[in-house]
Amino acid sequence: MTLRVGVIGTGMIGQDHIRRITDVLSGADVVAVTDANADLAHEVASGLKTATVHQTGQDLIADANVDAVIVCSWGPTHEEYVLASIAAGKPVFCEKPLATTEEACRNIIEAEAAAGRRLVQVGFMRRYDSAYRALKKTIASGVIGAPLIYNSGHRNPSVPAHYTKDMAIVDTAVHDFDVMRWLLGEEFATIQVLAAKPNSLGGDLQDPLLMILKTRSGVLATVETSVNIRYGYDIRGEVVGESGTAALADRGPVVIRAEHTVGVAVPVDWRERFIEAYDTEFQEWINVLGTGEGPTGPSSWDGYVAQVVCDAGVRALYSGETVAIELIDKPAIYLERS
Amino acid sequence: MTLRVGVIGTGMIGQDHIRRITDVLSGADVVAVTDANADLAHEVASGLKTATVHQTGQDLIADANVDAVIVCSWGPTHEEYVLASIAAGKPVFCEKPLATTEEACRNIIEAEAAAGRRLVQVGFMRRYDSAYRALKKTIASGVIGAPLIYNSGHRNPSVPAHYTKDMAIVDTAVHDFDVMRWLLGEEFATIQVLAAKPNSLGGDLQDPLLMILKTRSGVLATVETSVNIRYGYDIRGEVVGESGTAALADRGPVVIRAEHTVGVAVPVDWRERFIEAYDTEFQEWINVLGTGEGPTGPSSWDGYVAQVVCDAGVRALYSGETVAIELIDKPAIYLERS
Amino acid sequence: MTLRVGVIGTGMIGQDHIRRITDVLSGADVVAVTDANADLAHEVASGLKTATVHQTGQDLIADANVDAVIVCSWGPTHEEYVLASIAAGKPVFCEKPLATTEEACRNIIEAEAAAGRRLVQVGFMRRYDSAYRALKKTIASGVIGAPLIYNSGHRNPSVPAHYTKDMAIVDTAVHDFDVMRWLLGEEFATIQVLAAKPNSLGGDLQDPLLMILKTRSGVLATVETSVNIRYGYDIRGEVVGESGTAALADRGPVVIRAEHTVGVAVPVDWRERFIEAYDTEFQEWINVLGTGEGPTGPSSWDGYVAQVVCDAGVRALYSGETVAIELIDKPAIYLERS
Amino acid sequence: MTLRVGVIGTGMIGQDHIRRITDVLSGADVVAVTDANADLAHEVASGLKTATVHQTGQDLIADANVDAVIVCSWGPTHEEYVLASIAAGKPVFCEKPLATTEEACRNIIEAEAAAGRRLVQVGFMRRYDSAYRALKKTIASGVIGAPLIYNSGHRNPSVPAHYTKDMAIVDTAVHDFDVMRWLLGEEFATIQVLAAKPNSLGGDLQDPLLMILKTRSGVLATVETSVNIRYGYDIRGEVVGESGTAALADRGPVVIRAEHTVGVAVPVDWRERFIEAYDTEFQEWINVLGTGEGPTGPSSWDGYVAQVVCDAGVRALYSGETVAIELIDKPAIYLERS
Repeated sequence: MTLRVGVIGTGMIGQDHIRRITDVLSGADVVAVTDANADLAHEVASGLKTATVHQTGQDLIADANVDAVIVCSWGPTHEEYVLASIAAGKPVFCEKPLATTEEACRNIIEAEAAAGRRLVQVGFMRRYDSAYRALKKTIASGVIGAPLIYNSGHRNPSVPAHYTKDMAIVDTAVHDFDVMRWLLGEEFATIQVLAAKPNSLGGDLQDPLLMILKTRSGVLATVETSVNIRYGYDIRGEVVGESGTAALADRGPVVIRAEHTVGVAVPVDWRERFIEAYDTEFQEWINVLGTGEGPTGPSSWDGYVAQVVCDAGVRALYSGETVAIELIDKPAIYLERS
Repeated sequence: MTLRVGVIGTGMIGQDHIRRITDVLSGADVVAVTDANADLAHEVASGLKTATVHQTGQDLIADANVDAVIVCSWGPTHEEYVLASIAAGKPVFCEKPLATTEEACRNIIEAEAAAGRRLVQVGFMRRYDSAYRALKKTIASGVIGAPLIYNSGHRNPSVPAHYTKDMAIVDTAVHDFDVMRWLLGEEFATIQVLAAKPNSLGGDLQDPLLMILKTRSGVLATVETSVNIRYGYDIRGEVVGESGTAALADRGPVVIRAEHTVGVAVPVDWRERFIEAYDTEFQEWINVLGTGEGPTGPSSWDGYVAQVVCDAGVRALYSGETVAIELIDKPAIYLERS
Repeated sequence: MTLRVGVIGTGMIGQDHIRRITDVLSGADVVAVTDANADLAHEVASGLKTATVHQTGQDLIADANVDAVIVCSWGPTHEEYVLASIAAGKPVFCEKPLATTEEACRNIIEAEAAAGRRLVQVGFMRRYDSAYRALKKTIASGVIGAPLIYNSGHRNPSVPAHYTKDMAIVDTAVHDFDVMRWLLGEEFATIQVLAAKPNSLGGDLQDPLLMILKTRSGVLATVETSVNIRYGYDIRGEVVGESGTAALADRGPVVIRAEHTVGVAVPVDWRERFIEAYDTEFQEWINVLGTGEGPTGPSSWDGYVAQVVCDAGVRALYSGETVAIELIDKPAIYLERS
Repeated sequence: MTLRVGVIGTGMIGQDHIRRITDVLSGADVVAVTDANADLAHEVASGLKTATVHQTGQDLIADANVDAVIVCSWGPTHEEYVLASIAAGKPVFCEKPLATTEEACRNIIEAEAAAGRRLVQVGFMRRYDSAYRALKKTIASGVIGAPLIYNSGHRNPSVPAHYTKDMAIVDTAVHDFDVMRWLLGEEFATIQVLAAKPNSLGGDLQDPLLMILKTRSGVLATVETSVNIRYGYDIRGEVVGESGTAALADRGPVVIRAEHTVGVAVPVDWRERFIEAYDTEFQEWINVLGTGEGPTGPSSWDGYVAQVVCDAGVRALYSGETVAIELIDKPAIYLERS
């Protein structure tokens, strides 16, 4: 009854998920690993009870002892491993991005639709964050009325030297795009991207950006990305409804009164902010697979849409224009999700 | 040494200012009033120690006993009374708008510049609000670094039936425009206006709106107007700086724990929110005039710029385009202000 | 119609009230001053339009041009000046303490009762603080049910070298005693005083103290005095009611996100915290005297009770016992107050 | 390597811990159960993979397949099962109370000390709550200076009909006593208990109570128990230090602006408030036992001290006196814990 998991990619994120499944969560064991760096794969395996080290992701997927696959390898390899998992009829959890091009995402959707059932889950962990879940529940309760505007703020203390302005969209804001779709329950129709006065702490980077999206029903959504803002890792979000608003609260556990200030701490980094969301994400994935059902979390469709919105966002950034977001028809297997 | 004030327009706002000068503030008396409705003027005067009732605003301005004029009459009459006060060499406090067209505002600026010194102050009371003042001081302290983005939220529980979508710009957001210029210390270059999904509580009104402005140095500023949001009168504002942010706090005086909620009250209306700002605005006006100097608060220039931004905003609303904000050269008498 | 005020005692507090009446408030002028230091009195008078300098407080009270008296002199002189004002039939505002002994307070009460009407107001300014007023209103609204416990915190960054442990009761907690009586609408029956582990930042002072009082109906009230707590001047208060609680909120006007913290400022000192309460206190005193009525603020009775509670508190501090608070019968002239 | 756990007592709490170990946590299985109600034990076992149902707790403890024992049975039976576990050399987790009399607690301490190593852990879950842990870390950081006063508030919406005033001490405040000892790192010397004006919503119950404790070094600690306060389950705590204070924050995840209020939700009950603490408590217990070491959480000593403080508290409640808290010498096996 224990879910036997194989992990493709044993870098930082892969190791974190292995630790999570082994030491924190219930109902699954990591039984196989592989990595482009074979030495690393062997080292990681040595810390586990019994785990086979495979030479390739394809071998791991083919391993009869592997019930389900987690893909944490380099983005460009995602498509291949996800498609192979679908072909093998095995559930696969793929860290974002689902794939690096819209076409690749469509290939996955087509394969999964052809398989006739959901096998793929994409790692949009915000949907498992207790605060976002409470926010969604608040919207559903009707206490603030129908949502009309959503303002999202994505703030990082700093980014590495290789971070480019496109990454503010495809690596950073992509999480905001997904969680806003999930919160609002509908697709985006357009995106516009404005550059604010550049932050001198960010060197030559065009930062911050302000993105303005519109949903099909007309809800406006803004995303501020401020990735050199120093003061902390701060994910902000407010829904403006017809009769009230609801926002992610500051969650610092201790109110400190010292040195003429009263306040709470802001998270230091994304690990601190979302560690519990990752735990919940995988525990629920394990639980639902344990029942024999397919995954119910973010789907290939969600991965595909995220890619389309990001592509449109990058075009909007370079053109200065408002860009339309055009999606294919949604296959039936993705319609069931609540 | 007591400043003798004449009030043109004794409607709701005029009466409130008369009460303020008479019962709350120090250093001024209302000695003359006038109103298009002569009966009302007489009634209001009867509640004062000794106040002359004039037949016209022009008569009031010419009254040798009147040291300074307050204009609270209907907007279209402002230009005439402000120009007459300038001609008489008398300080004049004009409720917003300074005048109803850009041309009228320019007429006033020219007359005042010709007079060679400031006589006019415009009623942008937010600059006197203790929270906005603390926000400006926070920016100046450098604790959040240089401002890059400003987000303003202007929320009303409801608006009267005659409220049109233009009014969200010229009556509502005009306060946000002025206070943002003052906080950021620079002029706006462009404005764009987006309509969100309409609030069903607002009937046919296009509400809420999201306005996006850019300053000459590149700071982005957004204004959300939600004028049917029911939950309260809530003025929100956050500066995103290079290394931190600063926002207007909720100011409810009592934290109540009841019925599974812990929270504070939101103001019911603009009177509750800004009553102290009005008091400070007029006390400082009285004090500075008492020293024999001209007014130091919002000037004709500020009134003119507000008008230009509003006109551009209305064009942006109807066209869907980003509209440039073009200003005349700033006359020297307006340069001294910090 | 302008109230002509004479001020006895032109030290720091007297000067502040003179500034307030002259520059900030409406309806009163300072027309006479006196001080034990005649040079100081003359210097202060020289800054006023026209103010007579009297040699003694008795002379000032006798001055036919003086409508009402403010006593800001040294505590031991209060009794004499308040009695003289009552004898002269003139309203008198006396800074706390009303007098320095219970007997002196009773002398004042007897004189005022004999005069048959209220003339005396005592300077317990917290009753004029907007937050305390909102707290009282919240209790009256019933939203938290009947009050059962009140916790008060009185925190000073530091105190001068001459501050003794008795002063934590008679100078510091006396404000808490008065405002709790006012909030709860009843008298205290007992007081107990406990010393906590001493704060090493306070030298040899026994600080902090925790006082526990019980009202006649059984409500428990605690007062924490922490007078070397460095972080700010922080007045805290929470009512625990039958179905909820209500507490004084933090009122910092700006939420700052910087250096891994989100928070608001705490006041630096009592001036910052209570400046508006002092303004309101005197404006309301002026207004009610202007109607020809006697004062409606804290009365001689309140000054007397404060003295009795403080005396009991000091005995409780030295004895370690719970000390009863015994009051004389309340004269009829004090029963009218709401 | 999986810890095989036997559970004595399969009532509400026992079932919750079984669910936790089976579905949520990592590294342990429930392999044996027993209950005074044999039908209930069989029913609970039927929901598990493979669990032996024992006729008695003694049988379960003797079961060679059981590595560690969890005692969730009726309080008066705790002593017997804990002693039997110690005799069997098996780690035992005992829900509070450790035992129902001071003598029984001492019996356990003596047995464990004779065994020469820690085997027992007591279910004081607050030490595993993320907010209390952050509070302890804040104290240790020195940011507020040495603790001088601690104020604890324990608020329940309501209590069942059989709840007596003693229970406010032995069932309710016992958690506050333990967590304050842990936060402050020292033992209490005295306790006093005051009854406030009774809450009419609590029928004849003497509620709320205010308990005042003093530690050996002189820190004052207060505990307010309000067990009919309706508005929510609210655990409050503030440390007053030499230069600042630190308090448990409100943790509601969503700030809602609706109906003239801005606020966050208060927990509905203790499950909601402490569910994560229970998870952490057991996961850490499993983890440390998995290393072959004895438990490191709350010990028999902590259970004993809690009992002594409660006994003193009950005497204080009935006598109205301040009662001394006298402890035996602490056996060496309890000294190692940090």
